[in-house]
Amino acid sequence: MGAFGFELLRTDGAARLGRMHTARGSVDTPAFMAVATQGSVKSLLPADLRAAGAQIVLANTYHLWLRPGAEVIRELGGLHRFMAWNGPILTDSGGFQVWSLAKLRTISEDGVEFRSHVDGSLRVLTPESCVEIQRALGVDIIHPLDECLAQPATEAATEQSLALTLRWLRRGAARWRDGGAGQALFGIVQGGVYPATRRRAVAETCALDLPGYSIGGLAVGEAKAVMLDVTELTAALLPADRPRYLMGVGKPPDLVEAVARGVDLFDCVLPTRNARNGQAFTADGPLTLTHARYARDPAPLDADCACEACRTVSRAYLRHLFGSRELTAYRLLTVHNVTFFQDLMARMRAAIAEGAFGALRTRFLARYGVESGDDSDGRAE
Amino acid sequence: MGAFGFELLRTDGAARLGRMHTARGSVDTPAFMAVATQGSVKSLLPADLRAAGAQIVLANTYHLWLRPGAEVIRELGGLHRFMAWNGPILTDSGGFQVWSLAKLRTISEDGVEFRSHVDGSLRVLTPESCVEIQRALGVDIIHPLDECLAQPATEAATEQSLALTLRWLRRGAARWRDGGAGQALFGIVQGGVYPATRRRAVAETCALDLPGYSIGGLAVGEAKAVMLDVTELTAALLPADRPRYLMGVGKPPDLVEAVARGVDLFDCVLPTRNARNGQAFTADGPLTLTHARYARDPAPLDADCACEACRTVSRAYLRHLFGSRELTAYRLLTVHNVTFFQDLMARMRAAIAEGAFGALRTRFLARYGVESGDDSDGRAE
Repeated sequence: MGAFGFELLRTDGAARLGRMHTARGSVDTPAFMAVATQGSVKSLLPADLRAAGAQIVLANTYHLWLRPGAEVIRELGGLHRFMAWNGPILTDSGGFQVWSLAKLRTISEDGVEFRSHVDGSLRVLTPESCVEIQRALGVDIIHPLDECLAQPATEAATEQSLALTLRWLRRGAARWRDGGAGQALFGIVQGGVYPATRRRAVAETCALDLPGYSIGGLAVGEAKAVMLDVTELTAALLPADRPRYLMGVGKPPDLVEAVARGVDLFDCVLPTRNARNGQAFTADGPLTLTHARYARDPAPLDADCACEACRTVSRAYLRHLFGSRELTAYRLLTVHNVTFFQDLMARMRAAIAEGAFGALRTRFLARYGVESGDDSDGRAE
Repeated sequence: MGAFGFELLRTDGAARLGRMHTARGSVDTPAFMAVATQGSVKSLLPADLRAAGAQIVLANTYHLWLRPGAEVIRELGGLHRFMAWNGPILTDSGGFQVWSLAKLRTISEDGVEFRSHVDGSLRVLTPESCVEIQRALGVDIIHPLDECLAQPATEAATEQSLALTLRWLRRGAARWRDGGAGQALFGIVQGGVYPATRRRAVAETCALDLPGYSIGGLAVGEAKAVMLDVTELTAALLPADRPRYLMGVGKPPDLVEAVARGVDLFDCVLPTRNARNGQAFTADGPLTLTHARYARDPAPLDADCACEACRTVSRAYLRHLFGSRELTAYRLLTVHNVTFFQDLMARMRAAIAEGAFGALRTRFLARYGVESGDDSDGRAE
């Protein structure tokens, strides 16, 4: 694992202030990772991410493996050099995309065979090749192949799926340990929505004594309360001295609620994807920029925000750019949304440091309001 | 005209080194204007334009008038504040777009009636309203309504069209003079491809003693040699103490050849539009990034370029972004192309200052090579 490590600096209730160390720099937690699906956070360059306060990004193993190919990226010096981001990078296992994007999946004990959504080629992903692909990418934090069970699933099906995920985990972890230092493998805790299954998932995953743990199988369409309950249950069982990553979550209130339950790390495509649909995140809740009421509005998107969009242009201008399908519309709104998410994490960290997380949580949720509608997953940029 | 003025600093053959002054800053000439058709240079923000060395941008009257509307922009503090560009802005008259984009045009002595390509609404543009619209935008350099004659055109048709353009010019100039200071009106010299007509166009346009002169009716499909011959003829007749703007030109070799013939100011959508099609401009000629040969190429687009793209990423990465339709593909290539055009203008200015323009011209054209193919106009972003 080389330089990888995690310091738990302070707790406030279940909320945790920490610092994750990697060979490519530290990450203050709780942290949110913008998603660079194909090696690029859509419309942003690394300097924009830094300006927004981002310290780590997520990239998708599945996408980069299929295009341009892990070996191409290795040959070009690894993903950091390829995408010109010199901070830490985390990759998922690719499993989620195999289940959501690929065609004609055939699952076996060995792994999963499918057809690429890019060119229709036949591909096989095994626990071992999954580790090798991420090794070729040269990223800092990697994930083992897991089965992403379609929801809703019975307890028996969930148990069976977990058993396969755990067998795959042991194979992936063995390959990872063989490969020597340099990357941290996070174990993915599956187990669906069943407490007993989750408990066993935690116990068996943590038995491998991995550098970090990821909570998987959530944010896939289950009710919000279920997501939070399972997160709370799982986080409480994980070792305090390892980072905890809740995969694919989420909306701003979800981040606050999950931090309140002890989560350290998040990723989601919402800030970037919703930006491209004209939705800005603000302290007062989402703002749909395409509404006619903003046609002559000279105000910035969010008066409290210091991002490049809010510093320089009006809602009226941004709405005009959207209506005109200008590329800068997507860029400016993405800059804002990514900054909003980073600012929210920074505010949570500051509140935990001051022992005032509870007050921030109450204040934030009251002002932000309750969102209705779209509860779709946030991992398919 | 307020602070508007032009200094001719040095000549080298017919090539001119100058400085154009406006209330919002000076522009070193020869200069190239990136095109902010709808109030945004596609994919770039003002800070990118500054970083590329741009001192002035062009915006399209027609587009901004139809959407979001000139009055909306006036209400929001003018186009500079609207688009957050605090340097000089030049607008065209809208005439070119009426002729190329609008439907059901009806031309009369009064002006031109057409249906908006945005919403189908019936619109009328007159010499007077054209000036008023640009006044509402609050830009620094404006243009009078002119007739853009379809090519090829007979000499008689060209004469007739010029006569209308000149009557419209006098009406527009009268309205402009009534409006007081603050904006510089450039007269558009039409006259097609006929030397005698061009000569009369120059004489009658310059009789109005305007702050600058624009060479119109070129880069609309005529042969390259014709474009350059008419440019040479027209530029030689224009007063030395006013800036000369060749509208809608052009490719890098065209810029060099037109500077050699005495032109000071250019605009074209090629650097931005071709970027979105995967074409990079380099000192060795255009590079089509989507070619398979670049799939593993670790080199920057152009080793001589210091732009954000060339400093940070490889051709292989850019090709991957294009293949993946990532928004950063368009942005990075636009940054590069706009920088290339600005650098070329800076090199021409330096060469003129040293009396070495002829050598630069020979060297540049020999290395760049001759382009074939696309001679389409460069004003329809």
